Amino acid sequence: MESELHYLEDFHVGQQWTSESVTVDAEEIKAFAARYDPQVFHLDEAAAEHTFFRGLAASGWHTAAITMRLIVGCGMKPAAGTIGAGVDDLRWPLPVRPGDSLHLEATVLEIRASRSRPERGIVRVQMHTLNQHDQVVQSCVANVVVPARAG
Amino acid sequence: MESELHYLEDFHVGQQWTSESVTVDAEEIKAFAARYDPQVFHLDEAAAEHTFFRGLAASGWHTAAITMRLIVGCGMKPAAGTIGAGVDDLRWPLPVRPGDSLHLEATVLEIRASRSRPERGIVRVQMHTLNQHDQVVQSCVANVVVPARAG
Repeated sequence: MESELHYLEDFHVGQQWTSESVTVDAEEIKAFAARYDPQVFHLDEAAAEHTFFRGLAASGWHTAAITMRLIVGCGMKPAAGTIGAGVDDLRWPLPVRPGDSLHLEATVLEIRASRSRPERGIVRVQMHTLNQHDQVVQSCVANVVVPARAG
Repeated sequence: MESELHYLEDFHVGQQWTSESVTVDAEEIKAFAARYDPQVFHLDEAAAEHTFFRGLAASGWHTAAITMRLIVGCGMKPAAGTIGAGVDDLRWPLPVRPGDSLHLEATVLEIRASRSRPERGIVRVQMHTLNQHDQVVQSCVANVVVPARAG
């Protein structure tokens, strides 16, 4: 229903959403890595013990992909879909381990109307992906393209 | 062989690598999206025509994951593996379409030894992912953790 969709005018600084949680298992970590990030610390528990990560860890890009799924499932519903113009300061302060349960906390930082394109603007959203111990495993600021109701 | 691996001292500003190309098809775009970014413009050709993208487009996170695969396959071989402390200014200036063939061009921007941890440092690498028309479909600066030989 259109009433559930959010236009640029519907966002405000400080607005927050929290997603449901999703659990990441070793099979998914290894399957993602085999296709997109085939390095030993993402593929093999025993060999990973002797690496920087000291055990199997998800690819950061896997954490990013899971975070996108959490974004799509949370209450933020830009009218044209969740379309990222780009992402700033993507960081992975802690690895994601098999069995970790992740959720997203999203907060609107800034709303920018476009002078050249009045039909849309950018909503800057702080995204924190947290594990079951409420530790941040990923942080970034997403620049989301949002249509204006009046555009 | 250890002689093929690169330590912090082996990198220099301006150093470049170009990856092989990989072709992205509609099935892979839809499979990634179904799992990680289930939005209509990444899932259904016909419905995607009526969206911002005006046709099926890969999730930006899919482009990022493919780029990681290209990084692992290119000649840059940090001794501890390609481990990202984080990524700055991730942008998707053009969508990736079914049939696009992508390759990576990577250039060292900066090398930072760590004062607190002399055993490693950060190599900042500009990553451009290009399509078959040499158009940039993704750009970012990756902060790669690299061990020092002397560390």
